[in-house]
Amino acid sequence: MAQNPVRFGLIGTGRIGQVHAASIAANPQAELAWVADPFIDGATAVAARFGGTVTDSPGELIESGQLDAVLVASPTPTHVDLIEACVDAGLPVLCEKPIDLDIKRVDALRPKVAMSGVPVALGFNQRFDPSFARVHARVQAGEIGELEQLTIISRDPGPPPANYIGVSGGIFRDMTIHDFDMARFFVGDIVEVSATGAQLFDPGAREHGDFDTAVVTLRAASGAVVTIVNSRRSPFGYDQRLEAFGALGMLQVGNLHSNLVSFSSAPSVEAKEPYVEPFIERYAQAYALELAEFIKLVRGAASSSPGFEDGRTALMIANAAQRSAEEGVAVRISE
Amino acid sequence: MAQNPVRFGLIGTGRIGQVHAASIAANPQAELAWVADPFIDGATAVAARFGGTVTDSPGELIESGQLDAVLVASPTPTHVDLIEACVDAGLPVLCEKPIDLDIKRVDALRPKVAMSGVPVALGFNQRFDPSFARVHARVQAGEIGELEQLTIISRDPGPPPANYIGVSGGIFRDMTIHDFDMARFFVGDIVEVSATGAQLFDPGAREHGDFDTAVVTLRAASGAVVTIVNSRRSPFGYDQRLEAFGALGMLQVGNLHSNLVSFSSAPSVEAKEPYVEPFIERYAQAYALELAEFIKLVRGAASSSPGFEDGRTALMIANAAQRSAEEGVAVRISE
Amino acid sequence: MAQNPVRFGLIGTGRIGQVHAASIAANPQAELAWVADPFIDGATAVAARFGGTVTDSPGELIESGQLDAVLVASPTPTHVDLIEACVDAGLPVLCEKPIDLDIKRVDALRPKVAMSGVPVALGFNQRFDPSFARVHARVQAGEIGELEQLTIISRDPGPPPANYIGVSGGIFRDMTIHDFDMARFFVGDIVEVSATGAQLFDPGAREHGDFDTAVVTLRAASGAVVTIVNSRRSPFGYDQRLEAFGALGMLQVGNLHSNLVSFSSAPSVEAKEPYVEPFIERYAQAYALELAEFIKLVRGAASSSPGFEDGRTALMIANAAQRSAEEGVAVRISE
Amino acid sequence: MAQNPVRFGLIGTGRIGQVHAASIAANPQAELAWVADPFIDGATAVAARFGGTVTDSPGELIESGQLDAVLVASPTPTHVDLIEACVDAGLPVLCEKPIDLDIKRVDALRPKVAMSGVPVALGFNQRFDPSFARVHARVQAGEIGELEQLTIISRDPGPPPANYIGVSGGIFRDMTIHDFDMARFFVGDIVEVSATGAQLFDPGAREHGDFDTAVVTLRAASGAVVTIVNSRRSPFGYDQRLEAFGALGMLQVGNLHSNLVSFSSAPSVEAKEPYVEPFIERYAQAYALELAEFIKLVRGAASSSPGFEDGRTALMIANAAQRSAEEGVAVRISE
Repeated sequence: MAQNPVRFGLIGTGRIGQVHAASIAANPQAELAWVADPFIDGATAVAARFGGTVTDSPGELIESGQLDAVLVASPTPTHVDLIEACVDAGLPVLCEKPIDLDIKRVDALRPKVAMSGVPVALGFNQRFDPSFARVHARVQAGEIGELEQLTIISRDPGPPPANYIGVSGGIFRDMTIHDFDMARFFVGDIVEVSATGAQLFDPGAREHGDFDTAVVTLRAASGAVVTIVNSRRSPFGYDQRLEAFGALGMLQVGNLHSNLVSFSSAPSVEAKEPYVEPFIERYAQAYALELAEFIKLVRGAASSSPGFEDGRTALMIANAAQRSAEEGVAVRISE
Repeated sequence: MAQNPVRFGLIGTGRIGQVHAASIAANPQAELAWVADPFIDGATAVAARFGGTVTDSPGELIESGQLDAVLVASPTPTHVDLIEACVDAGLPVLCEKPIDLDIKRVDALRPKVAMSGVPVALGFNQRFDPSFARVHARVQAGEIGELEQLTIISRDPGPPPANYIGVSGGIFRDMTIHDFDMARFFVGDIVEVSATGAQLFDPGAREHGDFDTAVVTLRAASGAVVTIVNSRRSPFGYDQRLEAFGALGMLQVGNLHSNLVSFSSAPSVEAKEPYVEPFIERYAQAYALELAEFIKLVRGAASSSPGFEDGRTALMIANAAQRSAEEGVAVRISE
Repeated sequence: MAQNPVRFGLIGTGRIGQVHAASIAANPQAELAWVADPFIDGATAVAARFGGTVTDSPGELIESGQLDAVLVASPTPTHVDLIEACVDAGLPVLCEKPIDLDIKRVDALRPKVAMSGVPVALGFNQRFDPSFARVHARVQAGEIGELEQLTIISRDPGPPPANYIGVSGGIFRDMTIHDFDMARFFVGDIVEVSATGAQLFDPGAREHGDFDTAVVTLRAASGAVVTIVNSRRSPFGYDQRLEAFGALGMLQVGNLHSNLVSFSSAPSVEAKEPYVEPFIERYAQAYALELAEFIKLVRGAASSSPGFEDGRTALMIANAAQRSAEEGVAVRISE
Repeated sequence: MAQNPVRFGLIGTGRIGQVHAASIAANPQAELAWVADPFIDGATAVAARFGGTVTDSPGELIESGQLDAVLVASPTPTHVDLIEACVDAGLPVLCEKPIDLDIKRVDALRPKVAMSGVPVALGFNQRFDPSFARVHARVQAGEIGELEQLTIISRDPGPPPANYIGVSGGIFRDMTIHDFDMARFFVGDIVEVSATGAQLFDPGAREHGDFDTAVVTLRAASGAVVTIVNSRRSPFGYDQRLEAFGALGMLQVGNLHSNLVSFSSAPSVEAKEPYVEPFIERYAQAYALELAEFIKLVRGAASSSPGFEDGRTALMIANAAQRSAEEGVAVRISE
């Protein structure tokens, strides 16, 4: 029997909020019922396109009594309070990463989330990318034997604005945190973190004492070793690769080309068109599948949505990486 | 200023009709206003999902007075009469290929279409595939110099049912006709056709005296030589490749993989997952872009939609290929 | 027990003769004992590098009594007489293709070769290319099921000098003949030939009434259909590709890159360095393996060297292609 | 004017010695004059194939007075004494890496080498691999802008015998040392080393307290960050990749396939045949070019052969990596 669509409230209508609004509109099992943004024009524009009642008050949205779930896509400093309000209201919530930049605030919220029984999911969308998910499934199926080395190369098309860098929490908490979650997705518990950071090209990173380039090595409880190579800039489009290496073979995820064309001429051959650049294009399917998995969670079905604890652990690894890069020591962590 | 969406009537709700219905629903400049199919359950199901008034009578749809354009996706033998009815009603029409299997019927309709001024577009969707279109644009821009050789390899995932083969008009009119249109898209007028056909594996083809395997060589007025390699079956997914070769280089379109994963192990390395299989998946963007281009035509804007004459010429080339394959002679054609 | 090296006489010291001289010198089972070339400086230079007694007289070489085998790399019009002289002298001979441009001369020599029992091998070196040979072996092993379509794309880096075109016998006898032999290697007996030729860019071809561009379709007795796409020029290096397609899969041979480097930047990604250009570089291993196989033949061991009949049949197919291209008809041949 | 070939004495006729013997024999500017190995049968076999006077005494070889240069391919513990003897005899020497496992012994020899003026080259053959060298040249030419990140993935086909592990000096001094030299070749002086090692699969590594898996991060004086991923085993052939990433682009070196064949079938497409496995096959050209460059050095011409200081510095980095992996700290080094 067909179920009623899950009525979503969306908080935050920036770039990522708009992606989620479109995903909700495109999913026949979901509908956009409320849209909140203190920047009311953003909320109005999203509602005009995808439906929903508009408010500038997230609190009004949460207390509307007309929702089955909330999607939080507002700035990071608001996440903890909004998750708490949703949990208090008994509303399942899918919140963008990170939970917060301050592990103390995360830990303060932790017991309430744990005891509430209200589903809290974290927006680690890359787990749902069909290619990464396929490699994960094939690794689980034993195709490469024991997973020994995981190598992630992750480079953004370009650095964010300098003022964003200033409030981002730094490259490890802002950008590498996706790779930390992917590492845990593949190898499980992480026990040691070694990180190296550099300021090579981005004035914004320099201004705010952040790195624009980083390499992180993780050691897993399983023994597996993870290597993450990051840059805030890639001149040839979005660079998002992964290699899972084991006793029997290697599974790789390559980059997404903008089309199927290649060109051969005197200077070079088989030159392909650039990789897609916007993360929204690279991870379009991932966002849709992330939402679908969260809807299962809302409905009480089996779901593999990453949750509050995944968000907290990724932040702990990011903190360890920050300390390792600053102090030049390998940092032990216990999840 | 925003224009009202183009109100579409859809005739035919088989596999391809459903693709068009979805494209119409997804395009903010279009809406599905009427759906007709003598198999009324099909029409009802499509309307339930994408909207529109249901009828079992294409005539009622055309005469409803509530449409701006018609999309014909019904069986081939109905195309000529439906195009004529649309033209009589002054309704722009986008009709699936081929116009008809009988050139005499096409020619009988031809003067009316020409004189009416009513836009008639043919469903050669591959022209709108982003990869083929990109190669076309780069060839036009002179990147490979004069185009000398065009090579198209086109293999379907599997043969159609035997009873469809019986009414299909044969491989050249049914399947290769797409490649003939692509050839004209790239090299312009075709002046000579040589074809070789074979019955190698498909009982349906054997039963109906059709080929399941074919190679066609076309000579263009420009001097360019086109080679088309066809099979009704491909064991590794949809095989749709194209190479444009010239004095300065070569542009190629490869196949669409189902994801970005590759696998290396002892027996082989860099093994990718199979190509996508359904044509609907391979040409998803092409159908959407074909519709968008037709909407421009309906609105009187500049449009590159292939038209009635393109449909007629492709049929003439197909007829020449059939004769060439049967008689073992190169057949001259004059467009 | 080690055998004495096979003592070779080399006739002809042009580009291809030098390749064979180097192969002989590099093979521990062969030695270069005599070198003949009416252009004595050529013979002297080769002997200085790789050893051997020098003469300007092929006859003196053949009658020296110091040879176990002869390698004929002189101009095509000399082949028939030299093969005959070798056969008369009881000397196994490896002769470059084609045997002759005139099938009558070939047929006149045929009975003597057949009755002599002297091994005569033809220089269809591509059969020994490790990649083509590997595809052949995997096809034989059944990996693609029944072979249904063979597609060969073969383009030379650039056209030969105009005066060579004049004596070459035309593109089919001079260049495509390699592809005809490859076709037979893969699909066996050929029963029908359809060819299309064009003059698109080479003044030498135009001057001598030859084609610079050609497409040939072959039908095999097995039912398999072969497509050959040729050009006398390739702007991006030597283009030598092959696809064997069947019920279960497809085996492909790609081009040989000059190194393992690829480059990604803003305009394009994964651009590889050009394919190797000289045929000697592309087929370096093939020449060495061709010689090794001929040495087996000389020693009476099992050998897969193509022979006189292979050379004759390839010429018959080339003749049929020439006629087909000129008359616009499919030409039946009986091997 | 042609110069006399350089007369080489080869010390050590194991696997790598045999490679050098073949390179010397194949180079027209070199000849193998003496071969020494205490295991006299090895020396005799090499001389039988490639020429040279045989001795079981390296000293006799060095003092023969019949040499222009010496190639040392004997076990590591003999290197320091043999280099010293060559230097004392005024004989240019090309010595396999590493100079020694003990930096104290290296430093004790250092002043003599520096003051002698006798050319001492180290066998970092990978610098001469045409693909790595080509990337180096393109980086130098500015094609990727400033080099920011160098990523090296280097995995051997399989672990060496356990008893070799015991005397190897550990993975960093034995295997990664090649990658350390490549890092210096690309980014210049290294100032900081962070290493992580693991025992995941090799009983030999476990027995001798060595790692079979390692990741190393290097920081260069230029600011560039280098990542090295190592494994003692690769199930799909020799895995030797490199990526140079910068502001304008990325240059990559891929693996060497054993041929040009790929296979597409129902389970996977474009599956290539395994990478070549023996290092001798992967680096065949590199060994020949290394020798050619050393011959320039012997003859007093400009040469880019890496020398004693390169060998010493690579060892220092390896020592730092060992300490970093053991103590969990980033180790500063000053070259």
